[in-house]
Amino acid sequence: MAKRRAIFRTEPLPSSRVEAFSDGVLAVVITLLVLEIKLPSDLRTEAALWKAVFHIAPVLAAWVVSFAFVLTFWVSHHYFFASLKGTDRGLLWLNGFFLLNITMVPFPTGLVGQYPGFAAPLTLLSGVMLLASLSFALMRLYATLHGRLLRDHITARAARLAMIQSAIAPALYACAVGLSSVNTLGAIVIQLLVPLIFFLRTPSHHASAENRPP
Amino acid sequence: MAKRRAIFRTEPLPSSRVEAFSDGVLAVVITLLVLEIKLPSDLRTEAALWKAVFHIAPVLAAWVVSFAFVLTFWVSHHYFFASLKGTDRGLLWLNGFFLLNITMVPFPTGLVGQYPGFAAPLTLLSGVMLLASLSFALMRLYATLHGRLLRDHITARAARLAMIQSAIAPALYACAVGLSSVNTLGAIVIQLLVPLIFFLRTPSHHASAENRPP
Amino acid sequence: MAKRRAIFRTEPLPSSRVEAFSDGVLAVVITLLVLEIKLPSDLRTEAALWKAVFHIAPVLAAWVVSFAFVLTFWVSHHYFFASLKGTDRGLLWLNGFFLLNITMVPFPTGLVGQYPGFAAPLTLLSGVMLLASLSFALMRLYATLHGRLLRDHITARAARLAMIQSAIAPALYACAVGLSSVNTLGAIVIQLLVPLIFFLRTPSHHASAENRPP
Amino acid sequence: MAKRRAIFRTEPLPSSRVEAFSDGVLAVVITLLVLEIKLPSDLRTEAALWKAVFHIAPVLAAWVVSFAFVLTFWVSHHYFFASLKGTDRGLLWLNGFFLLNITMVPFPTGLVGQYPGFAAPLTLLSGVMLLASLSFALMRLYATLHGRLLRDHITARAARLAMIQSAIAPALYACAVGLSSVNTLGAIVIQLLVPLIFFLRTPSHHASAENRPP
Repeated sequence: MAKRRAIFRTEPLPSSRVEAFSDGVLAVVITLLVLEIKLPSDLRTEAALWKAVFHIAPVLAAWVVSFAFVLTFWVSHHYFFASLKGTDRGLLWLNGFFLLNITMVPFPTGLVGQYPGFAAPLTLLSGVMLLASLSFALMRLYATLHGRLLRDHITARAARLAMIQSAIAPALYACAVGLSSVNTLGAIVIQLLVPLIFFLRTPSHHASAENRPP
Repeated sequence: MAKRRAIFRTEPLPSSRVEAFSDGVLAVVITLLVLEIKLPSDLRTEAALWKAVFHIAPVLAAWVVSFAFVLTFWVSHHYFFASLKGTDRGLLWLNGFFLLNITMVPFPTGLVGQYPGFAAPLTLLSGVMLLASLSFALMRLYATLHGRLLRDHITARAARLAMIQSAIAPALYACAVGLSSVNTLGAIVIQLLVPLIFFLRTPSHHASAENRPP
Repeated sequence: MAKRRAIFRTEPLPSSRVEAFSDGVLAVVITLLVLEIKLPSDLRTEAALWKAVFHIAPVLAAWVVSFAFVLTFWVSHHYFFASLKGTDRGLLWLNGFFLLNITMVPFPTGLVGQYPGFAAPLTLLSGVMLLASLSFALMRLYATLHGRLLRDHITARAARLAMIQSAIAPALYACAVGLSSVNTLGAIVIQLLVPLIFFLRTPSHHASAENRPP
Repeated sequence: MAKRRAIFRTEPLPSSRVEAFSDGVLAVVITLLVLEIKLPSDLRTEAALWKAVFHIAPVLAAWVVSFAFVLTFWVSHHYFFASLKGTDRGLLWLNGFFLLNITMVPFPTGLVGQYPGFAAPLTLLSGVMLLASLSFALMRLYATLHGRLLRDHITARAARLAMIQSAIAPALYACAVGLSSVNTLGAIVIQLLVPLIFFLRTPSHHASAENRPP
């Protein structure tokens, strides 16, 4: 015990509360998105109501895209923290910066519904996704550079690979930002592509899950 | 320890964070529902206020039905994950799909209040409940097919039984969708029936609770 | 281990997830209350803005009262579950019924602000508090009757005492409901009295905290 | 075991549920802030939309400041509870008082957007921050005075140092309240200064993190 204390200054903090707080923030964000789905309040017939429901299809699509986005980053966050021994002060703040960007998502998602057919909401949504994925990559970079935070059995090579994979999402979202004002469909396809890639192959899965003690 | 790592590739991940995230999402959904309960802002007397409160009885009823629905699925989720050894990537995403459908609930619940007496909101609410219960059954099917996720003492027979029970809710909600436009009361009765059935006999209770280590 | 399984049918389930879900719901309810605090949007001067802030004093008061109410029941819930060995199906549903009543709180709290000076919002708020405290007492009654849920060192006498204490809040809130339409101030005093009593002497504190293993 | 029970009356309660509840409240508050970011609904061109986005820059700034504020107090809360052995009834209620003040934050944050250029919203925001930081300092003072709540290896000197550091934030926010009506920029700079100070040097980090068992 005495020995433990002596070396503790350089030991990472347990990450359970960071995970709980992040889970809370991501759970609230992913659930708040539905508040952006609304029907006008002056409809008079059943037919008009159904027409209005089909009319808000873009809003529903934006909701699904944003939901998939937040879920993807929750899954990544889950695997990333599973690969860590613990956290330190720097990681706490970088995680906070990541959450700042993620909590921004409902704003552009709501704009897509408020201004259907406009390019600006899509650009903003892609921009927020770019920032969120960049800050996530930054968090991973920090952990990779501060090797002591990583679980012992994660090799430098595995960590580097996960780092490269973490750069894919921001690169794709940067393309989506560029495309959004010239080719709406292209931007949406990219936004759907990222969760799909992660769905088929979660980055860092191999770096962490394989070796994680139960 | 070395042995443990060697076999870990086929071992499931601990499910504590999936449970925490799902608890968070379900807690936010179940609480957001109350935001749909509102009174008009132009009432002038105490009597008018009370009349308005009784006037929104359908909204209050929709709120109770949706609350009971989300609570039922939280209880089922609780028992289902208690019957698992852990999760894997597939289950993480299926759980996400289940949450997508559950977070949709406040939208049709709000519509019932916004358009009282209309059939469409009720059809939409039944439809969302159908999707949520289907995705839950899908999650259970996945775990049953990937036997390694189930706790050892859960027999194939118990798992199959829980699977059959999980098909009851979607079947009933499909009836509610069909009924909603021709017989409002019938649809509501079915919506109340599902939580009642689960209340009297929680599916998978026997498959998990009995044998769950404390 | 074999023995453990054999007797498990009568053993309670661990209560960690019920606590987490309840914490989530209570955290969302207590935080949503602030959404009811709003200023009109047509103010033109700094002075008008400050006047409007003082004008919504009743809303702020209702917010503090409702916050104290939810916090009191969170503290009670905390001590109550600390006195349990675990939960069973009945307790899960009773806890859900308690949460149903608690999530209702933001509606009458918002009405107090929407209709200042009216008695009906106060009656409704007292009524919701009455229902919530009754359902909490019901939950405790259930646990007291199903002795196997209680931690071994909690004596029947201590449980009965906690039960009696749990009946105080509903009795007081019933008075508040009765008073609210004839004596506004009296009803508010009672609403403030309950958290104060719990603050000075948390019921079941002695029944649980004393003996709870760390 | 018998011995443990005998001395338990003076032992603190485990703090896991207080942490979970506080995490929930702070997660909801920090996420709700985004709901205050809105665009007018009568814009007709892409250019008008972009102009509107830049026009709400003060709202975005207020959102970032409030986010940083809540995050800072979450980090402090995290380190503070990591330095505790457990909680008692007094700390539960003081923590509730701290949460009351924190949940207030979205109201003045929303006002900054509703009344851009006005001083009153900034004064209110600084005032809420002052109250929250004061109640946090109060919580720490309570724990310092009730030494038995602190982990054994935290020296009286370290606790006193953390106490002094905890007094810096309220002092700065008091200045912000005073400045807000005469020098808007000065008040904002102070509001940004506090998270920055905490970012560079988290108070109580040394008092707790160093010695905290993993």
